[in-house]
Amino acid sequence: MPTIKDVAKEAGVAVETVSRVLNNRGYISEKTRKKVQDAMKALDYTPNPVAQGLSKKNMDSIAIVVPHIVHPYFAKVISQLEKEATKRNYKVILYNSSGDEKRESRIIQICQNSFISGVVLFSSDISKETLDTFHIPIVLIERNPCGNTFSILCDNEQGGQLAAEHLIEQGCRHMVAIGTLNVDNMPGDSRESIFQSVCAHNGCSCAVYRSTPAEYTSMEYHATIEAALDENPDCDAIFCTSDLIAAQVIQVCNKRGKRIPEDIKLVGFDDVKLSRLTSPTITTIRQPIREIVAQAIDTIIAANAHQEVKQSVIFPVSLVKRESTSKGSKRDSKLSKK
Amino acid sequence: MPTIKDVAKEAGVAVETVSRVLNNRGYISEKTRKKVQDAMKALDYTPNPVAQGLSKKNMDSIAIVVPHIVHPYFAKVISQLEKEATKRNYKVILYNSSGDEKRESRIIQICQNSFISGVVLFSSDISKETLDTFHIPIVLIERNPCGNTFSILCDNEQGGQLAAEHLIEQGCRHMVAIGTLNVDNMPGDSRESIFQSVCAHNGCSCAVYRSTPAEYTSMEYHATIEAALDENPDCDAIFCTSDLIAAQVIQVCNKRGKRIPEDIKLVGFDDVKLSRLTSPTITTIRQPIREIVAQAIDTIIAANAHQEVKQSVIFPVSLVKRESTSKGSKRDSKLSKK
Repeated sequence: MPTIKDVAKEAGVAVETVSRVLNNRGYISEKTRKKVQDAMKALDYTPNPVAQGLSKKNMDSIAIVVPHIVHPYFAKVISQLEKEATKRNYKVILYNSSGDEKRESRIIQICQNSFISGVVLFSSDISKETLDTFHIPIVLIERNPCGNTFSILCDNEQGGQLAAEHLIEQGCRHMVAIGTLNVDNMPGDSRESIFQSVCAHNGCSCAVYRSTPAEYTSMEYHATIEAALDENPDCDAIFCTSDLIAAQVIQVCNKRGKRIPEDIKLVGFDDVKLSRLTSPTITTIRQPIREIVAQAIDTIIAANAHQEVKQSVIFPVSLVKRESTSKGSKRDSKLSKK
Repeated sequence: MPTIKDVAKEAGVAVETVSRVLNNRGYISEKTRKKVQDAMKALDYTPNPVAQGLSKKNMDSIAIVVPHIVHPYFAKVISQLEKEATKRNYKVILYNSSGDEKRESRIIQICQNSFISGVVLFSSDISKETLDTFHIPIVLIERNPCGNTFSILCDNEQGGQLAAEHLIEQGCRHMVAIGTLNVDNMPGDSRESIFQSVCAHNGCSCAVYRSTPAEYTSMEYHATIEAALDENPDCDAIFCTSDLIAAQVIQVCNKRGKRIPEDIKLVGFDDVKLSRLTSPTITTIRQPIREIVAQAIDTIIAANAHQEVKQSVIFPVSLVKRESTSKGSKRDSKLSKK
């Protein structure tokens, strides 16, 4: 393969001149530019993308750092991010941090040193102090704005409200909400808290349960669901802060002979593929994941171009009705299936 | 940030000498090596990973190219590959080809130009001629050896046999097998064909159905499942070549009032998380995905080190019994749940 030195020799110019033509940098006369371009053509030279990335200090790559990959929410996020990044000619580097703050910090450092364009970070507890040590663009998803970073959220409060209103409309009165335990205050916590306050406002009871960190890691929520059903035998509706938890509510209810939607109505959160793969299918709050990750990538691109960028963006969510809250029989619910 | 030039100046040596120390290349006297190392320390110089990658023509990165990301099999493959690559200090670059041969070829070309260490490729129809144009190590998974590439498979025949033997043992006699339609002959096709021949050998009927390419793309298999059930009203067992199809068999059976496992016993393939999230949980053929991707990465590393590598490796599979083939009532099956 011909190198930049070969091109310089062929064109009779300095290596630095070829580099300036390649990177469109500094003044070059039209005559010299043409000489260099002709030499490239004659030698069938294509610039090496790594050398180019090194030269412009930008590898046109986005890193995504998640605490899980197989979790259906993150699988969908990764899939949409790859699609939107490809559209914009960016590569995607994938990291699983397992939610470990030290590993998150190490990954960001590697990305910064490697001229990665920016980091899309899902982290529940990386500190402002740690984030402030970096100068690479960092977009936090589902986390409040923090230091010098950008934040993108879905409207978690709207989600909790839509879920509560829908279940109340279906005639439910004794609610249970099952969420994820977070170490710190996270925006997602308002899913359950708003759900509970809308219930209270409408004269409905609502017991809130939070899964353990071990359940989050293993993605097995049966113990918390069993406890919630044991302690609320008259419960007629369950709101879960993920479709993954909701799928397991169906399993536990099945074992106990509780029918969904006849005995208990169920609403999940996320609108991932899993919500259409269970029996019954799961009514859920849809996060606009494509729009969220597209915004994250555009934020990184704009930040690198020193353009003005909103520090924080919140995307609205919507209710997707499926079989798990259908009023009629299973046969009727077929018609309303999305 | 100090550069390699600054280090050379500080040490009083040529830039090329610093580069040789950094890359452990060529002869360097201990005295010179120490001078360079002292200069690096004095300037707090850390070598840039991109410059190093460019110099050694290897970015210590593995590319994975899949036709789907949210499909639970690929989500698990990607997750395990990230884990095994990280253990070996390799980065993972993720590409979704949507199964498009032209795009696959373009991605491999980009990887080769960018000094990516190797490509793990899931492709059903990229041609030998196209593969032969590349010199980057390519590992094909679930595809027969082809040209200059490496091939890693699970033992698909053993999988079909284990599924058939298990269902026969449970007393089933009228089987249906539902697989994926492939353009070319693929190793995975032997899952259904061996299943069918083991059934025939044991005096059981077996009708084989293949989903359409559109179903594979949308991951919605209801139409093929409905047809299989319509045409085989006395069917008492269904074998699906993925857990994703099996989850949808549960949905269709539910709609028709057919109980699993009481009326129809069900076996999937892959052993992804989904098989433990359905109601009932799905008996399945477990692919050793961690071992498969670890072998893929080690193959790439060995090929780059010019070590001898097996061109083709087949990993054994195993049967994981869950509720969908349990003999007793649902309550009993709780005990045998994995």
